[in-house]
Amino acid sequence: MATRKRPPAIARLRSFSDAVLAIVLTLLVLELLPDVAQSPRALLDNWPSYLAYLTAFLTIGSVWVNHTEQMSRVRRANPVVMFLNLGVLLGASLVPWPTALISHALKDGTRADQIAAMVVFTLVACLLSVPWVALDLYLARRPQFLASPEDAPWMRRHALTSAATILTALVSLGIAFISPLVSLLIYLPVFAAFIVARLLERAPVEADDDE
Amino acid sequence: MATRKRPPAIARLRSFSDAVLAIVLTLLVLELLPDVAQSPRALLDNWPSYLAYLTAFLTIGSVWVNHTEQMSRVRRANPVVMFLNLGVLLGASLVPWPTALISHALKDGTRADQIAAMVVFTLVACLLSVPWVALDLYLARRPQFLASPEDAPWMRRHALTSAATILTALVSLGIAFISPLVSLLIYLPVFAAFIVARLLERAPVEADDDE
Amino acid sequence: MATRKRPPAIARLRSFSDAVLAIVLTLLVLELLPDVAQSPRALLDNWPSYLAYLTAFLTIGSVWVNHTEQMSRVRRANPVVMFLNLGVLLGASLVPWPTALISHALKDGTRADQIAAMVVFTLVACLLSVPWVALDLYLARRPQFLASPEDAPWMRRHALTSAATILTALVSLGIAFISPLVSLLIYLPVFAAFIVARLLERAPVEADDDE
Amino acid sequence: MATRKRPPAIARLRSFSDAVLAIVLTLLVLELLPDVAQSPRALLDNWPSYLAYLTAFLTIGSVWVNHTEQMSRVRRANPVVMFLNLGVLLGASLVPWPTALISHALKDGTRADQIAAMVVFTLVACLLSVPWVALDLYLARRPQFLASPEDAPWMRRHALTSAATILTALVSLGIAFISPLVSLLIYLPVFAAFIVARLLERAPVEADDDE
Repeated sequence: MATRKRPPAIARLRSFSDAVLAIVLTLLVLELLPDVAQSPRALLDNWPSYLAYLTAFLTIGSVWVNHTEQMSRVRRANPVVMFLNLGVLLGASLVPWPTALISHALKDGTRADQIAAMVVFTLVACLLSVPWVALDLYLARRPQFLASPEDAPWMRRHALTSAATILTALVSLGIAFISPLVSLLIYLPVFAAFIVARLLERAPVEADDDE
Repeated sequence: MATRKRPPAIARLRSFSDAVLAIVLTLLVLELLPDVAQSPRALLDNWPSYLAYLTAFLTIGSVWVNHTEQMSRVRRANPVVMFLNLGVLLGASLVPWPTALISHALKDGTRADQIAAMVVFTLVACLLSVPWVALDLYLARRPQFLASPEDAPWMRRHALTSAATILTALVSLGIAFISPLVSLLIYLPVFAAFIVARLLERAPVEADDDE
Repeated sequence: MATRKRPPAIARLRSFSDAVLAIVLTLLVLELLPDVAQSPRALLDNWPSYLAYLTAFLTIGSVWVNHTEQMSRVRRANPVVMFLNLGVLLGASLVPWPTALISHALKDGTRADQIAAMVVFTLVACLLSVPWVALDLYLARRPQFLASPEDAPWMRRHALTSAATILTALVSLGIAFISPLVSLLIYLPVFAAFIVARLLERAPVEADDDE
Repeated sequence: MATRKRPPAIARLRSFSDAVLAIVLTLLVLELLPDVAQSPRALLDNWPSYLAYLTAFLTIGSVWVNHTEQMSRVRRANPVVMFLNLGVLLGASLVPWPTALISHALKDGTRADQIAAMVVFTLVACLLSVPWVALDLYLARRPQFLASPEDAPWMRRHALTSAATILTALVSLGIAFISPLVSLLIYLPVFAAFIVARLLERAPVEADDDE
């Protein structure tokens, strides 16, 4: 038979998503670059940029860790999976935008500017999370796309995590109307909890082998 | 025999194209980054940037989906394939340029500026599509480059799609002289039709397996 | 059994780190791009940018060489490895920031601006090196993560190198209070020594084969 | 025996170089992005940017085609190969800098600015080509690094091509003192000749197979 094996679409989906997330992570630094020499005082006064950078880095870093984990459990991709994944990447690639808005609004914006920046951050968080919930649920119902039977419950649990991200974003938005700074700071313990939870999970170590 | 197996040029063509498209997709956000704090009104007045961003994201996202699909059917590359592919990438990597032109022209440009921006968008769409039609037709006639006999008709069908893109761009350009905004908006139903058509195709799911 | 082999997390960690380091390396050039035509004199007066570019390129280039070498010895990744690696990438992706600060401070900044820029460079060097020491020590104690028994002593030696980087950064910072320029220039012989040391190591040649 | 197979350094050298070249290719567009709406006249007056963009795109595109071809013939990398390759990438990643200089100098610079921009372009071309000649000659003498015995003469021929690039750059520089624009235009027929020569070579088609 003349048909040859094709490279799997899922492999290219993984490498493309990796590239997009790596670039977003790296572009964040452009907001920190100065146009002129900075005095020590100017460097200290620039703290909102550092806080916004850290939040955005943790956002994209967490998306990458979750995406890697999820896609290692998927062995097939079809157009539905590819377009839902593009939806997640659309949200992720917008993250530098609210990051810059928040950074400028905290430095020299009015309270209204700060609230508007947090509204954009919330919208981008939802734009990232809504297609991800849809992707989780789509994969959870299609065992033929997954590497093992235990991956379907994983997808359902991940749908809950993605939904919790949307809820966190909405709660943070509510707080933004009282204090925009607090509504941003609230993300840091959420990321810390996520990282600690991941470090306590030991199961993947056994399953994961590079041979 | 001393000769060892060489890594296939087609594999590096795929990963290089992925990287270029991923970067173009991600650089689009740079146009959204503000220089100063934005008031809620300024954020709303910036709608042409969001529309231009969405159109450009859908353009590059569709190029990526098509390119992935096509290159999964190609198992060899020669210099002709590599240079025609570089032609496609030249067009794709220019997309942020008309995107920025359209965004500025809709915000504070004259009608002539808006038409000029759409002319550039049309030229870039053709620059992207003309080498792609050539690549499609080149591959359609060379079964020894393809993974399976069914891939030659696929390449011919894809040449028609690429030619249709050129036609859409020219029709949109004609409309630009009546209303530049409508000529941009016309791309959105075209992308929606493309996405719906891809989601209805179910065949690739069966053929695509990550083992 | 229905379980299929999963792609190893370590492979995606390698390709993601490659992408981040490649982008950081390439973004450095953005600081060199002029806004207007440059006279021959303006080009020569811009020497601090070239010195800062070279130092930053050598920093990221050395990180890449070390990272490649290290990760070729690791065959498993767990959440601890992935988050410590994200810590290293956080430091690496910040490098363009002190690079721009140093470049501007040497061109038109006060002595205080220059010292402040070197403080930021030192902080970023530590931010990059501290999680790397932790990663080295974590891997050195877990032979089940490593490709061969000889890799545990390699990890311990690399922890010493990473610790030496922190020490160099602190010594350079001390010198910055006497002469900021000398404190930057001190990195060049350190990189030269690192490159010469690597060129004299011949062992990897025998072990490394692309089949 | 406990030792496991390590991923080859040459594979990561290939993917890292691909990523660097893809990013450089894509960053070139940043120079085209306007700050304000552009009139049709302003778009036409911007022709030096388009010429500079095209030259830079062809430069990086040709580097990528050559690099892919060369590295498909190399099956081992040692620190010497990795550092010489980093030297090639240092030159390649600087290309956007003379591109921007030339573009600004042709638009609103003096004759001296234009000559200075071509001097920088020549220096960057040499910075790219000198380590490449060294890499070619290093590999030509080490058959144990190459995939097949026919690859040693290929490396020697490539050393001649890289040396010819240096010669072209120096001739172009001489012409720059008579006419900077002509000295830039001279690169276009050189690239055309390179592309035609590559398209006429048919041998790689037979050798290259994706299985």
